[in-house]
Amino acid sequence: MSQALELISEARCFGGWQRSYRHRSERCGCDMRFAVYLPPAAEHTPVPTLYWLSGLTCTEDNFSTKAGAQRYAAALGMALIMPDTSPRGLALPGEDDAWDFGSGAGFYVTATQAPWAGHYDMYGYVVEELPALVESNLPVQAGLRAISGHSMGGHGALTIGLKHPDRYRSISAFAPICAPMRSPWGRKALSAYLGDDPTTWQQYDASWLAANQPSAQTLLIDQGTADPWLAEQLMPEVLEEACASSGQPLELRRQQGYEHGYYFVCTFIGEHLEFHHAALTGA
Amino acid sequence: MSQALELISEARCFGGWQRSYRHRSERCGCDMRFAVYLPPAAEHTPVPTLYWLSGLTCTEDNFSTKAGAQRYAAALGMALIMPDTSPRGLALPGEDDAWDFGSGAGFYVTATQAPWAGHYDMYGYVVEELPALVESNLPVQAGLRAISGHSMGGHGALTIGLKHPDRYRSISAFAPICAPMRSPWGRKALSAYLGDDPTTWQQYDASWLAANQPSAQTLLIDQGTADPWLAEQLMPEVLEEACASSGQPLELRRQQGYEHGYYFVCTFIGEHLEFHHAALTGA
Repeated sequence: MSQALELISEARCFGGWQRSYRHRSERCGCDMRFAVYLPPAAEHTPVPTLYWLSGLTCTEDNFSTKAGAQRYAAALGMALIMPDTSPRGLALPGEDDAWDFGSGAGFYVTATQAPWAGHYDMYGYVVEELPALVESNLPVQAGLRAISGHSMGGHGALTIGLKHPDRYRSISAFAPICAPMRSPWGRKALSAYLGDDPTTWQQYDASWLAANQPSAQTLLIDQGTADPWLAEQLMPEVLEEACASSGQPLELRRQQGYEHGYYFVCTFIGEHLEFHHAALTGA
Repeated sequence: MSQALELISEARCFGGWQRSYRHRSERCGCDMRFAVYLPPAAEHTPVPTLYWLSGLTCTEDNFSTKAGAQRYAAALGMALIMPDTSPRGLALPGEDDAWDFGSGAGFYVTATQAPWAGHYDMYGYVVEELPALVESNLPVQAGLRAISGHSMGGHGALTIGLKHPDRYRSISAFAPICAPMRSPWGRKALSAYLGDDPTTWQQYDASWLAANQPSAQTLLIDQGTADPWLAEQLMPEVLEEACASSGQPLELRRQQGYEHGYYFVCTFIGEHLEFHHAALTGA
């Protein structure tokens, strides 16, 4: 049975539709929201999809309103699927105590520790529940997916993409948390959601995956050199070394003088959409 | 003597710089903020400028983050100057009581009524103080200006542009308040800032100006047909009639199905920048 999607808002944009939906999530045990951009081409034929995973504190709105991606998606004929970054409103103890943990900081894992287990499953939500919902309700081509994201969402895109080369044709990221087992943000989240045994964290660490389970797909990554989180939290050099060790293809572009935010993302998002479009269409 | 500009933030964007500044405003009698986008070309040669006036509740950030205009400005070699929409933090009685009046709702007039007179002079600020400040401190071509805006800011762009054909080469607007003397938003603001005599409101009404003081410049206006404020507040048909009566050139484009917000603005902002670029460069 197709799950119910409730349309929350819609607006015309570049000849297509920008929409937001709410639905009951089984994986997260609460209502979840996501945003969609459908290009003009989707009125006539199912289109391929790019899943975008956002960063700490974000909702489905940040990328929708700030990245300027609809223009490229309209021209290329791609749908954009933009989930929220965590369950919301569960009133779990500690859920809203910190900006970098809990609400807005699901870290794209399946939590195993109380009180998060059973709700904080953004991994299962993004990999399985959301695509099934999208592909049974919206005019997209089933199975024709790419994945990208920013910061915490870049970590999500890399780890999910590396683990599921069968489910995503292409993978990219902006300023991703490349080695969460070593970064303060990552260690805080992984220990709370998964417990103290670091071997359970490995499947959620892009650098560990790239070293130990490389895929044939090229990872396209843009990283600003003036990003204030670069050295302490993001650590692209760790991923670079891991890829070199295993032969994982990587195109890491250090963008001179760019920062961490959406003025950086909007500058290069067009090139990422072209990269994904080529992989999705064989162009 | 050049006034002091304090740099609040800056970020690389499309090869140029997105910046925000704070400065003491004589017109408004308080500190004011504005945002600037400088295209890559400004590193080598002074560039023409587009002034963008935002709508109710907005600050200098809304257009900066949501319109996606930097991409076009970078390609065309134009600077964007984006002021706030009112004085802030004056603690005047009633300043923060309503979303459509006071803070965030300066309406681009020179207030004559207490307690607003001496502070709420967004007209003088936009027309004289801000350009003087910009042209003495930033790498722009003095006197080579265009003006545009959205909603309340569309009203500002049309009225300021019509009154000063010598100061602006071209004028455009998105979903402007075309006849503020007839709209509830306009009547509330004009009566409070200017008093009860409607003859003092005429210089701030685009339809009155177009009928009585037409200019030779074509007004380019985009208006979404699904805009919820269209009939009650915006009234493009009143401006259309005024332009027809006086011979004021008008290109009013009714965009089918588009709403009022930035998903509408971002769709057509590229065409507006091209329109202004042609007027500014004689291309």
